[in-house]
Amino acid sequence: MHYVGADVGGQTIKTGVVTEAGQLVGELTIVPTESEKGNDHFLNQLCQSIRLAVKAASIDFNQIKAIGVATPGLMDIPGGVLTYPVNMPALRNVPVRDHVQSVFQKPTAFQNDANAAAYGEFWIGAGRGTKSLVLFTLGTGIGCGIVWDRKIIEGEHSHGAEVGHIIVQAWNGRMCGCGKPGHLEAYASETALRKIMAEKLDEPKHQASILKQLAQTDGLSARTLFAAAGQADPLAVEIVQEAAFALAVGAACMMHTIDPEIILFGGGMSVAGGLHFLSQIRHHINQLAFEIPAQNTRVELAEMGEKAGYIGAAGWAKHLHG
Amino acid sequence: MHYVGADVGGQTIKTGVVTEAGQLVGELTIVPTESEKGNDHFLNQLCQSIRLAVKAASIDFNQIKAIGVATPGLMDIPGGVLTYPVNMPALRNVPVRDHVQSVFQKPTAFQNDANAAAYGEFWIGAGRGTKSLVLFTLGTGIGCGIVWDRKIIEGEHSHGAEVGHIIVQAWNGRMCGCGKPGHLEAYASETALRKIMAEKLDEPKHQASILKQLAQTDGLSARTLFAAAGQADPLAVEIVQEAAFALAVGAACMMHTIDPEIILFGGGMSVAGGLHFLSQIRHHINQLAFEIPAQNTRVELAEMGEKAGYIGAAGWAKHLHG
Repeated sequence: MHYVGADVGGQTIKTGVVTEAGQLVGELTIVPTESEKGNDHFLNQLCQSIRLAVKAASIDFNQIKAIGVATPGLMDIPGGVLTYPVNMPALRNVPVRDHVQSVFQKPTAFQNDANAAAYGEFWIGAGRGTKSLVLFTLGTGIGCGIVWDRKIIEGEHSHGAEVGHIIVQAWNGRMCGCGKPGHLEAYASETALRKIMAEKLDEPKHQASILKQLAQTDGLSARTLFAAAGQADPLAVEIVQEAAFALAVGAACMMHTIDPEIILFGGGMSVAGGLHFLSQIRHHINQLAFEIPAQNTRVELAEMGEKAGYIGAAGWAKHLHG
Repeated sequence: MHYVGADVGGQTIKTGVVTEAGQLVGELTIVPTESEKGNDHFLNQLCQSIRLAVKAASIDFNQIKAIGVATPGLMDIPGGVLTYPVNMPALRNVPVRDHVQSVFQKPTAFQNDANAAAYGEFWIGAGRGTKSLVLFTLGTGIGCGIVWDRKIIEGEHSHGAEVGHIIVQAWNGRMCGCGKPGHLEAYASETALRKIMAEKLDEPKHQASILKQLAQTDGLSARTLFAAAGQADPLAVEIVQEAAFALAVGAACMMHTIDPEIILFGGGMSVAGGLHFLSQIRHHINQLAFEIPAQNTRVELAEMGEKAGYIGAAGWAKHLHG
């Protein structure tokens, strides 16, 4: 049997059909989300993406055992409802799961996109073979998913694994994009690093820095930052170190809460930073966390990139309905 | 059938026989731990406490289905070994579970004491009827236990729920008793409050404070602090507020990680602070946590006091071997 996994993003819906082993069959289908046109249109786009994905896989619908859909935003996971996606303001209380289930007459699983990505890495990615993992997805924000005892910790109020919003600086913390101070995301997301770079580059002493020069040609981004750090620019090196430290704080907090087998870093910023950035995070973890988890918890880069979302959604459908 | 639960502390071992419903049968047995006499003597004390508890319950040993033992310290929970209890330095690598199992020929469960207390509150205490909870036990340190999906999160390296040692102030944090900076325990344990009180009371401007007067007669303690705060002493009120804030930071971090049904505060300091302290913690949680978990997560005082440990140990034995 096969499973459909759909990963809803602000711009596109990525949908694929995967085998029992999590391998994509045929081509990945990408359709525009067009959330600005409201609930009904969005649900049509989602269903169309599922039809196209099955077609692209060249299989019959009776070969589909279940469907998984992952979305960002505030949601009621047990209810299958996307309640309030901050980045898709025209959508409200979308009954995603029941609609998809009713249209296709297939058991359907609904999940948070960061949780689905963690499940994807757990199922067939860098966390395969483990019983538990934490995935930090470093992008404009910091997404997080936790798998424990082979299940997603989705939380009793669908707020499990919002670890980008744990408080790492309770007093005099930087303001997070969510409007509350001191969150991990305010120190180590790409958005945070852009702000920190902009603040520092305003200072007279940094006008001659390599980072300043690169930023003027390439713009402020994680890629620019790591490029300048790679050229030993002291400012860039310092900003990267602080970000690695903040992420190590987040990782240590997970080691002292969940104590998983493996902690993964994924997303565009971890790709830009690569193994060197990972080794800096590891260095700080060794100082911050207790000796036993610090020495025994694997800390790795995620493997699956953007595939993790739709494959994880399919995997979660398999977990619940396989 | 019945279950034995033993809660090993630095000074005493508290052991009771409980029913399938978690009710103590007969009297609680208390024997000295005498850990300073080494592994063998300690194991004898533990086994003796179990024998006495069964005798005190006036039941036959064949009415015992399983035994649970909870201890503090570094441990290998799956291995049943107390490896390195910081406060009992004469004990090293004590094979607690296998020894008890072999002496009594009963299935035996081994668990961390803070985890066992959380399980006790989950089983028959303030968390009964829930699927998940977090318990903070506020004493000289901050113990924590997490129950998720009706199971203890003991961690893959037996470091689950060491939430007293999550980092709440990553930069310029106070030093924790464990030797690392910025931990929750450095801001809101009784030990931390004693240090903070001592620092503040050294300042000239606080020489006439009610807290200073009470401290001179009754000593520095959480009880003194809350008494002075109850008399509206501004210094005491400020210190209590900061502690409530720090605990709310810890609770909010759990809401954004585990997102449990209920968060409990127990231990001597929560007894001293009572419902007024709890309401201060709740006030800060409402500002710190996301709206949905802040509004929907129950935040309560623990109910079971010191009983939580041995009853939780017995309950965990029932969970594993009942």
